[in-house]
Amino acid sequence: MTQIETYITGHKDQFVEDLKAWLRIPSISTAPEHNGDVLRAAEYAVEQLKQLGIKQAELIPTQGHPLVYGEWLQATGKPTLLIYGHYDVQPVDPIELWESAPFEPTIRNGNIYSRGAADDKGQVMLVLKALETLMSVNGGLPINVKVLLEGEEEAGGESIEHYIKTYPERLSCDAAFICDTHMPSTEIPALITGLRGIIYTEVEVHGARGDLHSGTYGGVAPNPLHALAIIISRLKDADGHIHIPGLFDNYQKPKHEEKEFWEQDPLHMHEAFLHEMGVSQLSGELEYPPLERVSSRPTLEVHGITGGFTGEGAKTVIPAVAKAKISLRLPPDLQLKSQEVFELFKKAVAEVAPTDVTVNVINLHGGEGVLVASDTQVMQAASAALEEVYGKSPVYLREGGSIPIAALFDEILNVPVVLMGFGLPDDNLHAPNEKYALSQFFNGIRTVVSFLQKLA
Amino acid sequence: MTQIETYITGHKDQFVEDLKAWLRIPSISTAPEHNGDVLRAAEYAVEQLKQLGIKQAELIPTQGHPLVYGEWLQATGKPTLLIYGHYDVQPVDPIELWESAPFEPTIRNGNIYSRGAADDKGQVMLVLKALETLMSVNGGLPINVKVLLEGEEEAGGESIEHYIKTYPERLSCDAAFICDTHMPSTEIPALITGLRGIIYTEVEVHGARGDLHSGTYGGVAPNPLHALAIIISRLKDADGHIHIPGLFDNYQKPKHEEKEFWEQDPLHMHEAFLHEMGVSQLSGELEYPPLERVSSRPTLEVHGITGGFTGEGAKTVIPAVAKAKISLRLPPDLQLKSQEVFELFKKAVAEVAPTDVTVNVINLHGGEGVLVASDTQVMQAASAALEEVYGKSPVYLREGGSIPIAALFDEILNVPVVLMGFGLPDDNLHAPNEKYALSQFFNGIRTVVSFLQKLA
Repeated sequence: MTQIETYITGHKDQFVEDLKAWLRIPSISTAPEHNGDVLRAAEYAVEQLKQLGIKQAELIPTQGHPLVYGEWLQATGKPTLLIYGHYDVQPVDPIELWESAPFEPTIRNGNIYSRGAADDKGQVMLVLKALETLMSVNGGLPINVKVLLEGEEEAGGESIEHYIKTYPERLSCDAAFICDTHMPSTEIPALITGLRGIIYTEVEVHGARGDLHSGTYGGVAPNPLHALAIIISRLKDADGHIHIPGLFDNYQKPKHEEKEFWEQDPLHMHEAFLHEMGVSQLSGELEYPPLERVSSRPTLEVHGITGGFTGEGAKTVIPAVAKAKISLRLPPDLQLKSQEVFELFKKAVAEVAPTDVTVNVINLHGGEGVLVASDTQVMQAASAALEEVYGKSPVYLREGGSIPIAALFDEILNVPVVLMGFGLPDDNLHAPNEKYALSQFFNGIRTVVSFLQKLA
Repeated sequence: MTQIETYITGHKDQFVEDLKAWLRIPSISTAPEHNGDVLRAAEYAVEQLKQLGIKQAELIPTQGHPLVYGEWLQATGKPTLLIYGHYDVQPVDPIELWESAPFEPTIRNGNIYSRGAADDKGQVMLVLKALETLMSVNGGLPINVKVLLEGEEEAGGESIEHYIKTYPERLSCDAAFICDTHMPSTEIPALITGLRGIIYTEVEVHGARGDLHSGTYGGVAPNPLHALAIIISRLKDADGHIHIPGLFDNYQKPKHEEKEFWEQDPLHMHEAFLHEMGVSQLSGELEYPPLERVSSRPTLEVHGITGGFTGEGAKTVIPAVAKAKISLRLPPDLQLKSQEVFELFKKAVAEVAPTDVTVNVINLHGGEGVLVASDTQVMQAASAALEEVYGKSPVYLREGGSIPIAALFDEILNVPVVLMGFGLPDDNLHAPNEKYALSQFFNGIRTVVSFLQKLA
């Protein structure tokens, strides 16, 4: 057994305990009542960095939640890798569907269950434990490292965007590594070559001045909930087609090889989607292969609707106001900035809205998609590391989610990005019973150790 | 000053205090946590009946909330009037829009503000105070009286329906009087000649087995919230037309005189609706006059939608389940029982639902509409009483709301019904800042005193 492997094997329990302690802190960045917890989670990360040997570790205050920053630059003549992750987590509702408390990490069947286990504390922790392993075994790191963690990834990521744009020189590096993606299975390592951008909006519909009784006013009253239904049904039809004029004006068809990969579906993702979702048919634009739909086609999804009465029983109120949270995922193929899409969306909403209501569209946050070249040196090092640990070379996949920071590293820092993560498709991200496979946690540590060694 | 007027004037403060004490009890019948309060409100009514001289007053237990019953049958040879009202109230949300606490009755500008002030405790209390006045001044009532109050009017009214159908002989009477309607203004007394029926449903849409992340599954996942939007927009279009096959198959056009009244709109209800709702145009089926739309046309209204994420900020969840509360108001002109309409509705939902979701439609409650003849003796007595107090004869109007008990009295007890209430259009029924005008409270007492005297 190598010294590296000996160290990892000997510290398994400690690694898991350190992760558990972090997971216990409910760092929900969108909930102001958890601001103190978000700060505690950041402080915990600084402490971890210092303990593993990165003495220059600190909190960087922002307008929102602080950034965590640490650097170790003693590998003279070696490249510098910027490592990104996030320490904030999603809300936990519906809480009643969790089998164990979301902030009391519990191990069942080789998985650790907790909000944030996969997204993204588990993945960040495995990178920190890879650094700790290298530092402990070798007394230093094989390359220079800058670690940058944010606390607003689930809340729009404004602060880190501002920081990168304001101080790009402080983050100067040769490549960026983001550990916040997943692999198709424990047997199939993957590197991500594309991400969708996003806009997250709130559509607010106003009717009468106050709530109304449907007995008295039903027949002459505007109903903002009904108007929202009309708007939503006109923006996306039952066949999954999005009707936003201009959205596809710059659309560039994906490359032939990608199209072929999606059509052939060698990883049997069609069946996997059916299985994971527990459905008998897939939804959406049936004329495109499922893999293309989740990576290279835009989405328009309603995430929640408020207004009126939603308690137990019956209340015949016509609400004065109703709101819908609606997001769009934006594949880079659209060749539109998220702000441009927001403008198109806003215009489309105004056009399809019934005329008896007034509509206000708010841009809660946005982020750009990205396409990553697979032939850079840093991608080759990542590929070799994955092959070493998993015994086979990785597949190159697009992921349908959004990690706007990847586009920022690409555009502002102008360095190649590696998107290598160890999540699995059934990790229940953003849902009840989020989990992370412990085998992936430890193989992730091994892979990141090897990745850094190869970069040297 | 008559003895009656002297008594009313001398007891104004006491009458209002007795009403306030009742209003302070949060008898929300749909909220199980308020079951104790509902019971307390019933007991309070029994106490009031006993104090005013109706010794035979009691609670009648039911499967749900108790009925309040009291009778005074010592007017030998005189007719018997069954008096109906309800002591339960609507929920109070959105609580933040109340200017004073909903269960701390507050008097501002001659109005008493409280949940239940108009619907229906204020109106029931004025009837009780009319009985008290007659009893105190004359030592008895001019006619025989049976008082029946329910605690489930806002929760479907099942218990009273069961009681009436099971024990119709106990409620035998010559006429029924329901004090739960309103007048166009303090200057225009009214008698109600029609009410709409109702069905109140919950449409439940199921997609995937669990909540999903829109980044990973957006493009292949069913979205129950989007499916609901499609369903709702297909059931009622932006022009207010309801698309439920069969709904109008038996539709009988209203009488020429009613149609003329609605078209002429002598009470300027069109302007009143605009003013009360604070809108610049009316919604709905523009080819029908507004008065016809709120009384003789059906409605389909969405009252609330649940599912997904509705907290602060952004969560990109595709929910596994979404639900909508949807009601229909059913004018008697449709000539369909509420249960028949529910079956048509259920079928229509199934037909318009997207095929990638499963849909379940639940009937939360239903009630029948009614048309009331204006030429009965009891209506003439009511008309004369209103003219005496308000100085002009009443208008005959339909009301768009639903008081299913009216249809039950009509069908089961087979007696003429009088729908005479003293609410006003801006009483904010079922909404924040519900109020009742004190001038209407006292004029209501005077009118009911006179009504009972004329019936003798």
